Amino acid sequence: MQRMLHPTLESELAAIVGAANLRTSDVDLLAYGYDGTWYERAPLCVVLPGSTEEIRAIHRIATRERLALTPRAMGSGLSGGAVPLAGGIVLGVSRLDRILEIDEVNGVAVVQPGVITADLQKAVEARGLFYPPDPSSLRQSAIGGNVAENAGGARCLKYGVTADYVAALEVVLPGGELVRTGGKMVKNVTGYDLRALFTGAEGTLGTITEITLRLLRKPAFAKTATAAFASLEDAAAAVIAIADAGLLPTSIELMDRLTMSCVEAMRPAGLPLEADALLLFAVDGNYEKIVDAELGRIAEIARERGAFETRVAANEGESLRLWEARRAISPALARRMPNKLGEDISVPRSELVGTVRAIRKIAARHDLLIPIFGHAGDGNLHPNILCDRRDAAQMARVRTAAREIFEVAVAAGGTLSGEHGIGLLKKQFMELDLGADALALMRRIKDAIDPLGIMNPGKIFPDPGGIDAFDLPA
Amino acid sequence: MQRMLHPTLESELAAIVGAANLRTSDVDLLAYGYDGTWYERAPLCVVLPGSTEEIRAIHRIATRERLALTPRAMGSGLSGGAVPLAGGIVLGVSRLDRILEIDEVNGVAVVQPGVITADLQKAVEARGLFYPPDPSSLRQSAIGGNVAENAGGARCLKYGVTADYVAALEVVLPGGELVRTGGKMVKNVTGYDLRALFTGAEGTLGTITEITLRLLRKPAFAKTATAAFASLEDAAAAVIAIADAGLLPTSIELMDRLTMSCVEAMRPAGLPLEADALLLFAVDGNYEKIVDAELGRIAEIARERGAFETRVAANEGESLRLWEARRAISPALARRMPNKLGEDISVPRSELVGTVRAIRKIAARHDLLIPIFGHAGDGNLHPNILCDRRDAAQMARVRTAAREIFEVAVAAGGTLSGEHGIGLLKKQFMELDLGADALALMRRIKDAIDPLGIMNPGKIFPDPGGIDAFDLPA
Repeated sequence: MQRMLHPTLESELAAIVGAANLRTSDVDLLAYGYDGTWYERAPLCVVLPGSTEEIRAIHRIATRERLALTPRAMGSGLSGGAVPLAGGIVLGVSRLDRILEIDEVNGVAVVQPGVITADLQKAVEARGLFYPPDPSSLRQSAIGGNVAENAGGARCLKYGVTADYVAALEVVLPGGELVRTGGKMVKNVTGYDLRALFTGAEGTLGTITEITLRLLRKPAFAKTATAAFASLEDAAAAVIAIADAGLLPTSIELMDRLTMSCVEAMRPAGLPLEADALLLFAVDGNYEKIVDAELGRIAEIARERGAFETRVAANEGESLRLWEARRAISPALARRMPNKLGEDISVPRSELVGTVRAIRKIAARHDLLIPIFGHAGDGNLHPNILCDRRDAAQMARVRTAAREIFEVAVAAGGTLSGEHGIGLLKKQFMELDLGADALALMRRIKDAIDPLGIMNPGKIFPDPGGIDAFDLPA
Repeated sequence: MQRMLHPTLESELAAIVGAANLRTSDVDLLAYGYDGTWYERAPLCVVLPGSTEEIRAIHRIATRERLALTPRAMGSGLSGGAVPLAGGIVLGVSRLDRILEIDEVNGVAVVQPGVITADLQKAVEARGLFYPPDPSSLRQSAIGGNVAENAGGARCLKYGVTADYVAALEVVLPGGELVRTGGKMVKNVTGYDLRALFTGAEGTLGTITEITLRLLRKPAFAKTATAAFASLEDAAAAVIAIADAGLLPTSIELMDRLTMSCVEAMRPAGLPLEADALLLFAVDGNYEKIVDAELGRIAEIARERGAFETRVAANEGESLRLWEARRAISPALARRMPNKLGEDISVPRSELVGTVRAIRKIAARHDLLIPIFGHAGDGNLHPNILCDRRDAAQMARVRTAAREIFEVAVAAGGTLSGEHGIGLLKKQFMELDLGADALALMRRIKDAIDPLGIMNPGKIFPDPGGIDAFDLPA
């Protein structure tokens, strides 16, 4: 790995982005070398380009010099995706923060990659529109700027955003070529559809420089309800029953007792600690009576499945308090033990009961604290393994438990990651999930688009002789 | 091009699929060599495999022999995608026609590629579910088995179906490798998302052998309304105004006067021939009062935009009659002139007025009949150029008009094809739409996945020295 930025290269990069936007101080290399995991690596330099053309020029230099290039947005990813594992250049998109257009007729917003989801949400809501990705994560990002790195450095392509929300992308390929895929039109079957490929590539195929996002009309009414269960498995069964009844709340969030106790210890919110699990429902729509009727039906099914208490938030304040408790989970878990390994397995929602049961057994077997929470309505769970990295014996058990949780997800027809991406943290489990043929296919695509391997090296693909999430020095 | 099937190869293929499922007679080669366009080519042979394993074995032989392999479903595609341009093997999926599972909790159906959309729709509706792709096309396929070929031979991945509807795919790669992408879970960001790539690949990257489709709950009420306009441009403006008001009918179909007159000449349906254009609306929902209120608001906006008559279909019979008229368009146009060149440009819906105006100008300038109809609510139009292929002078004008229509679509931020795919018919316009860098990227992906170029050769990619839609002999 190259350790120092060559002076000629330094002046070339400074000429492209301006001296103020090329960072090489130790403090900057530290500040742009970490993400939301416990991993970090110092890059050679950080560039903060101000335009697509500047990004193309940086790509051409990285190609010429065979230098690693890691796109970066906020550094809040939870899988190590933005950590510049091979050093090289970190390409930060923070200066590309303009909402270029909000187009109501076509139902899209055109944004630069540095736009923060919460800012976009605010801007589109002022026009009666709505950017649909998961409301609980959205609210998180509104507070913590908590956006993922898994889309080539695009802030608004955050946790779990898939091509369903992406009408078009502008992407700079590794060698500097500029590609557009998709558009404002609703239907498009011209050539290969590459929106999903680049949206989910975690910066390994190029840098995203412009995004056209699909918007919906903002519903006139949004309400929140809760259901408290004496058993986590009953709560999971209620989620299945609600889906089976054809009800589709915008969110069903799950918190188990351990999760609630961590939240209450940090900031008391009146969560029912006598319950083994709580479900939190969001329902919205344009007709209040229908929203109320759906909430009523959800509560009824929850009680049939064993909920000992169901409540509809009486007002905006109570609703806000519940969602604040939901988004306090991550910081609250971080206080309980020195470290946590956050997973985000995703399973078919029909498999929720077996999955939560299996995770609890894994926790018991390895004597570990594993609070369970997540977007249960989507089958997406965030079992967080609480740990202390100084305790080597415990960390060995953490490592085994993490693998077992992935095995449970895959055996249930699910997957390693529903939202956070693979990055560094889960790459060694890719073949377990995808099989050898699919993984080989992905490698062929990677090699075809990035033949020099300069884009975000060390991510997604398992590296037989390389560093995995547990071997990487702190 | 190889002209005869070698006897050794013939026995190998017969051993895989059974003698009855290997077809080599002239009649069969003719029957499996055409599609919904005016192009045809005889393959060397037709194989009708009965399982994924048989398909893998056929792929291995095609790879070993460097033989072209063209997946085929019903042969009703409208872009030449299923025509075996390079001869070789046609791989028909008609025997793989089982609905493997309808899963209500996870909201998906797992089907083999030979399942016909109408049969799937019937099966899921019996369970209170609904397969959402475009109702007008769905109803077409229910009658004519009118499904597209543009997804590696999968019947139910018909016109315009994108990865939005596809939860998972099982695909046999050119060399016989078996790949699964996606699953029953709602969220999945593990590795590259390849569902869209294969769904839109028109059989150029592999053969699709199993599809997991997303389903919705069937709405309790569905109603139809019409609005008649004295000006086509006013009708287009009304579509924009309805979208701008935040109303989202499940369909807004457009027919211009020439289209209606063709339909009425074939089968009188009482369409308002005094109108320059008719809009046909479908609105559905679970609450009749809301459906009615939305229809009322749509009619109001249509009248504000110049509709001289708006009607809500009084009953199921009247509604059915209107949708029958809609799906009679294609056969009705086919009667007006000996041939037709059907396009399916897709533009941002904000560009509809300018687009219909430009198409009418093109028709006038070249003295051609170009009825305009299509899924106006999606910005997807089907201008059909009526023609007589024996009239060389007219065909020269058709060729120019076709190019001009594509140029209009691309200039409006739209695309060559919203539903039918590129196939043979539009491949020479790919660079006009995508630009050189995006087209080169797609070629790199094609070469990485199909390095021998055996999968459906001659499709999608422009071939500088090759055959285009107008040069191909009849």
